[in-house]
Amino acid sequence: MAARQPVPTVFRQLLGDAGVVEPGDASAAYLAERRGLFADRSVAAVVRPGSTDEVAAVLRQSATDGLAVIPQGGNTGLCGGAAPGTNTEGTIVLSLERLNTIRAVDAENFSLTAEAGCTLSAVQQAAAAVDRLFPLSYAAEADCQIGGNLATNAGGMNVLRYGNARELALGLEVVLADGQVWDGLRALRKDNSGYDLRDLFIGAEGTLGIITAATLRLYPAVRERATCIVGLDDVASAVALFARLRAESGDTITSCELMGRMPLETAIAYAPDCHEPLPAQHPWYLLVELSSSARDGDLARRLERALAESRDGVGDYRIASNADQATDFWRLRNRIPEAQKSAGASIKNDISVPIADMPAFLQAASEAVIARCEGVRICAFGHIGDGNIHFNLTQPAGMEPSVFLAQWERLTQAVHDVVMGFRGSFAAEHGVGQLKPGEVARLKDPVEQSLMRSLKAALDPDNRLNPGKVVPPGPS
Amino acid sequence: MAARQPVPTVFRQLLGDAGVVEPGDASAAYLAERRGLFADRSVAAVVRPGSTDEVAAVLRQSATDGLAVIPQGGNTGLCGGAAPGTNTEGTIVLSLERLNTIRAVDAENFSLTAEAGCTLSAVQQAAAAVDRLFPLSYAAEADCQIGGNLATNAGGMNVLRYGNARELALGLEVVLADGQVWDGLRALRKDNSGYDLRDLFIGAEGTLGIITAATLRLYPAVRERATCIVGLDDVASAVALFARLRAESGDTITSCELMGRMPLETAIAYAPDCHEPLPAQHPWYLLVELSSSARDGDLARRLERALAESRDGVGDYRIASNADQATDFWRLRNRIPEAQKSAGASIKNDISVPIADMPAFLQAASEAVIARCEGVRICAFGHIGDGNIHFNLTQPAGMEPSVFLAQWERLTQAVHDVVMGFRGSFAAEHGVGQLKPGEVARLKDPVEQSLMRSLKAALDPDNRLNPGKVVPPGPS
Repeated sequence: MAARQPVPTVFRQLLGDAGVVEPGDASAAYLAERRGLFADRSVAAVVRPGSTDEVAAVLRQSATDGLAVIPQGGNTGLCGGAAPGTNTEGTIVLSLERLNTIRAVDAENFSLTAEAGCTLSAVQQAAAAVDRLFPLSYAAEADCQIGGNLATNAGGMNVLRYGNARELALGLEVVLADGQVWDGLRALRKDNSGYDLRDLFIGAEGTLGIITAATLRLYPAVRERATCIVGLDDVASAVALFARLRAESGDTITSCELMGRMPLETAIAYAPDCHEPLPAQHPWYLLVELSSSARDGDLARRLERALAESRDGVGDYRIASNADQATDFWRLRNRIPEAQKSAGASIKNDISVPIADMPAFLQAASEAVIARCEGVRICAFGHIGDGNIHFNLTQPAGMEPSVFLAQWERLTQAVHDVVMGFRGSFAAEHGVGQLKPGEVARLKDPVEQSLMRSLKAALDPDNRLNPGKVVPPGPS
Repeated sequence: MAARQPVPTVFRQLLGDAGVVEPGDASAAYLAERRGLFADRSVAAVVRPGSTDEVAAVLRQSATDGLAVIPQGGNTGLCGGAAPGTNTEGTIVLSLERLNTIRAVDAENFSLTAEAGCTLSAVQQAAAAVDRLFPLSYAAEADCQIGGNLATNAGGMNVLRYGNARELALGLEVVLADGQVWDGLRALRKDNSGYDLRDLFIGAEGTLGIITAATLRLYPAVRERATCIVGLDDVASAVALFARLRAESGDTITSCELMGRMPLETAIAYAPDCHEPLPAQHPWYLLVELSSSARDGDLARRLERALAESRDGVGDYRIASNADQATDFWRLRNRIPEAQKSAGASIKNDISVPIADMPAFLQAASEAVIARCEGVRICAFGHIGDGNIHFNLTQPAGMEPSVFLAQWERLTQAVHDVVMGFRGSFAAEHGVGQLKPGEVARLKDPVEQSLMRSLKAALDPDNRLNPGKVVPPGPS
């Protein structure tokens, strides 16, 4: 056997200089996620192929050389799915960032085809340029990439109306573990000509194949919005109001965000541009937005009528009378994550339950964490219209942050146990990555785990695609 | 080895008398699909388990005895997916009809859980009883079963707005080839805690597992509709009008059905209750329905305005002024399939292409079949809003039906070849079953076929679940 060349050299020969990131400072951003929670500098190379064919060539080379491959988009994920972990010798990071072409836009078919490395913002803009909406939207949209959005089945602010990333994908192009390319870039609304491969790759976090391009579903551009903030006595009233608003508004609700008094108060205290939205204080708030592509959907009037007729539990409300006021309402919601940091260390839970079970869940989960950590503050907010709440825990006032954070696993597991009692999800929006395979092993039905391992073995028999992510090791 | 008992006796011991259908007249309906195209009387038994546990017991017994299993719902499919084919010795038919309980209805979560054997009508009614809509709807709804709807990813009249059966499923319960039960009955809008097993079983036509129950997505009940019929010069005008109406109507279009003059004329000539809908004749017609859960969506006015402002190609239109008139419009569309029979033998194509490509597809496909069969009449109608047209061919006037039908494969293949040129689907709505595995082998990317075989081998290694359906044999 000939002496092996260094891994970067092999890929430089394959991809040219532009295709390999120099070790050192240049590669640092690829080797750690942004908060520094998941990082490893022992990877063999960071490669940046410039086309689908080059991705395929990298995969073939990796198969030959027995290298594992970590696919990476914008590296904005919160569970370390795109970041190296530990023991990554014999592993390369494959960045999709150079595959950043919008290949086609078809306004009449309400679809476009984008390469994996296009930022979410770029996809939104390509849609807007033809008077269409690509509805996926969330805080990291300027940096995250559509390939990563699909690999993690990203959620965000408009799921209620338009679905997660999965529901927005019509077709995919995927490079498989052995370097074969599956061209599933179909722009069809109906296709029952075989198994649903598309949805298997979506949400698999790069463990079954590498998404290199996608054909996405577009919607008519939004022409009208109506935004309101509602003060509520309890969460049950929020659930009932949501159901009522869905019906009365002609299902034009695009967002329905719940905020507890605690996170709202934290945002107001922290951010000078955040103010009390209503004259009196309320235990819970709902931020509701309707939107429509019609020119005169009459949304504010519909909202006004539904709220005026609503029953017990609605304390007060305000409908934004102009775009600035709507921005004020949204700012309250959007400042919460940063404001929470100002209140001390926090432990975050990305969970979902059936919407109707949200009141019972919040009560049971709050009791569970308070029993384990006296003084812990519940900072609950998020997408109640999706049954997806960020059930975040802020440290007791005065406690040493490290003492609180040492309870991460214990408190998180307690919350997840309550979630499972409601047949909920312990990984609703942000995926599993390298953060939660242990919870998959602990909480998921063994039959489901075994199915996951069968699929992984079928599509990646040598376990070279993003190993250690998503799928827990099998029972020995 | 002990002498083996007859197969029906084995299952009678397992399931009781109610669990096995007597051979002869009683079992005939299970052994052939309704048109008699796919039939076989050599199956070893027809079993009717009464619960998920009994389905699991049947699968375990079948594994032990090496029996293949054909799962069957309402047996209304058009591609023979649920019917026995040839060479079915050592095979049983497993009817889900006794699993017909609505297990739970949750109006606030907009969801319900139904067992596989519930008819689609029963599911619709359970939703309506709590002021909700289950939007899946098509001609066979009184007889087809929700398990079969999901196994075939059924489409129908409302796909445009609400999606196919796949988009309406939140969770599944599935019995696997070895008799293990996967309990994936989650009622969640967001769950990224593992691979998407749900969508793998949906549309797999019972070849990967047997769906025994499903948690389904509900919508607010419809309170208002507006229906119109539009005469058009050409299909390009229909495509442009559809895009315009989507935007102007606030995306409340629920149906958008295209009809050529030929099928419309056939329906009017055949059915005494069908009449010319517009004063003049037009080459093409569009039947459009808007619907909304709001009480005053003002849909007719929106429709009127969008049509009045529309540009070239819209010849004339009429908006239904009451429900009876809307029914008259729909009758024109719904009578076409039976009317077509009165015009002689027909060859049906269930295809889809991107919506914007429909004009070019219709022209190319028409030329392809006319070149092969002079005088053939194009009977094109269907869901243009989904890019899914029933591109049906009616025999030339005066030709012997059998002479025309002898060209089935030749003409169908010619149409499918045109479809593939537009990256379309040769099995858009009705699935593959035993009718089209040959076309899967002929037309699908070999990489995709190989992925399908890998998944089949991973989940059903002994090929005992609905063998011979969907997946073509591998290259030898």
